[in-house]
Amino acid sequence: MIRVGIIGYGYMGQLHKKKIVQSGQARVVAILDKEQRRREEGLSDGYHVYSEKQLETFFKETMDLVIVATKIEERAYYATQAMTAGFHVLCEKPVAMNMKELEEIIAISDKTGKKFTVHQPRRFDRDYLILKEVIDSHVIGDVHTIESRVHGERGILFGWRGREKSGGGLLNDWGTHLIDQYLQLFPEEKVIRIECRLRSILVEDVEDYVELNLTFSNNVYAKIVLTTFALCEMPRWFALGNRGTLRLDDMTGENGSIVRLKTEVDVEELSKRGSVAPSLTLAPLDNLYKEKIPLPNEGDTTMCFWNSLIAALKGEGEFLVKTEDTIRQMKILEAARLSSETNQSVDVNI
Amino acid sequence: MIRVGIIGYGYMGQLHKKKIVQSGQARVVAILDKEQRRREEGLSDGYHVYSEKQLETFFKETMDLVIVATKIEERAYYATQAMTAGFHVLCEKPVAMNMKELEEIIAISDKTGKKFTVHQPRRFDRDYLILKEVIDSHVIGDVHTIESRVHGERGILFGWRGREKSGGGLLNDWGTHLIDQYLQLFPEEKVIRIECRLRSILVEDVEDYVELNLTFSNNVYAKIVLTTFALCEMPRWFALGNRGTLRLDDMTGENGSIVRLKTEVDVEELSKRGSVAPSLTLAPLDNLYKEKIPLPNEGDTTMCFWNSLIAALKGEGEFLVKTEDTIRQMKILEAARLSSETNQSVDVNI
Repeated sequence: MIRVGIIGYGYMGQLHKKKIVQSGQARVVAILDKEQRRREEGLSDGYHVYSEKQLETFFKETMDLVIVATKIEERAYYATQAMTAGFHVLCEKPVAMNMKELEEIIAISDKTGKKFTVHQPRRFDRDYLILKEVIDSHVIGDVHTIESRVHGERGILFGWRGREKSGGGLLNDWGTHLIDQYLQLFPEEKVIRIECRLRSILVEDVEDYVELNLTFSNNVYAKIVLTTFALCEMPRWFALGNRGTLRLDDMTGENGSIVRLKTEVDVEELSKRGSVAPSLTLAPLDNLYKEKIPLPNEGDTTMCFWNSLIAALKGEGEFLVKTEDTIRQMKILEAARLSSETNQSVDVNI
Repeated sequence: MIRVGIIGYGYMGQLHKKKIVQSGQARVVAILDKEQRRREEGLSDGYHVYSEKQLETFFKETMDLVIVATKIEERAYYATQAMTAGFHVLCEKPVAMNMKELEEIIAISDKTGKKFTVHQPRRFDRDYLILKEVIDSHVIGDVHTIESRVHGERGILFGWRGREKSGGGLLNDWGTHLIDQYLQLFPEEKVIRIECRLRSILVEDVEDYVELNLTFSNNVYAKIVLTTFALCEMPRWFALGNRGTLRLDDMTGENGSIVRLKTEVDVEELSKRGSVAPSLTLAPLDNLYKEKIPLPNEGDTTMCFWNSLIAALKGEGEFLVKTEDTIRQMKILEAARLSSETNQSVDVNI
């Protein structure tokens, strides 16, 4: 059994605990949290508990992995302390406030030989896996534009997520996941241009609306829209190819459609049929030429991230989220903020 | 009865003819077209017909208005000729290839005292009127982001619309309408920043995918997405306010929804209820706090543009589309092309 310690037993720390229990291949041994009520929760869950001041004693536990799930401003500190004490680290995303802190983490990892990896389970989200399969298989031809959206309804960023000095804001909170998904789509390509607009609509201190556009070196335009406050629905994904279109309505991977030109249809033929509304140009295409492809079924992916992590800890594979992935993400987050502050697009090579 | 001559009896010229007949207050007297088959159509519709070489004779007809519905590269020529010959002009949009041509048109209008106005009937589209009413009434609070989309399915731009030298391309063809709608939304505001991405997906010579973002001086971000080739549907409009959201699914103005916080709900309350999926931050809001507002019914607006034009010709009102509107549009089209060519946003004051 893999033995795990958790620093920060809030919402995310407890989610990790659930996954650990569910895996059947790992167990939690100890919790460290600065809040009394979190320690009481850890105690009633049957773990050894430690306060902030007992970090050294916590590190005397026998553990294969330390999970850092604190607010962002504390992550670099705990991650470096844990590696120095001899533990591999799984850190919540983003791992640090900025590139400088990330560089310190990398330096400690290099020095101690301990791995640090990042919680990026959304690489296994069913909606995302469908998108990836559609793109990789060219079923809708070459994709040129992709829209990725996640909308909340409550207009709120809880606790430290709403405070700038703690690393809050929707770009860090959700942007990091959605950027990571895009980077995994085109592993051979670089991001060459970044445009970003961050706005504070209902939360004062940080952005609660994000629009981030990444241009890849293969000329794919990858868009992200994030808001805490949209009361009408929009699709999770929308991707346009030169042979068809994908729309995924939500994260279940069960609602949406893939519509493409029938394989034998030549683009030249498209002018021949179709009525003329709303205009000559933008008229519908006769159904004769189109076919609907069933959505791929990705099965149950809820444990994939954890299973791969445990395998890597057992020496049965690589850690999924690599240092270079985390560096690329941090560079994109920083360029996005620069773009938003200057109201200009930023040329990059990330 | 208002007497009308039409130069260019293609798809749009014949659409004008239908509207003229439908109005019951105007009639077509003469057609000029360079193509034999168009003249034959005009003849069989009962009008005097003229070839390109007979422009002078055409201008000897007794007419209150000349409609210019040729390809874009010929519009400035015919518009200035018609005003010089003593006629008011209704021109298709955009009226000219560039600002220089537009300035020539304005100079002739000033010199002759003849009015020129532009065909912008989409100011009366039912979907647009709903959007405008929602924004003006603040029913979803202050709007900060609006998305305007029109998607075709056939991946084609017919005839001259697909040729750059004739003024083709989706930005001119549809962009002009959607820009005009946005400019009418905020008559007191300036456009201060323009970002644009023009792409050729299935058509070679011109753009058949347009993404155009306008930032207004009131900080509203107004987006346009146009494509000739999307086989899955997306909403016509999506508008985010700080009290609610509007989504209109199509141009009928009958499908969509307006959802807002109940008037008595304070934003502070929103954290108190709601489940936690897909995450703590982006969770749904309890229905207790939301209300659905019925879509306004805009009635039959199909003749509004034409009725206002005829009223102006009778001296019973102003021409709806003014010279300054057309100048703003042309400046935006030019800045959009510059933005797309340079891959940078363009600061403007339009």
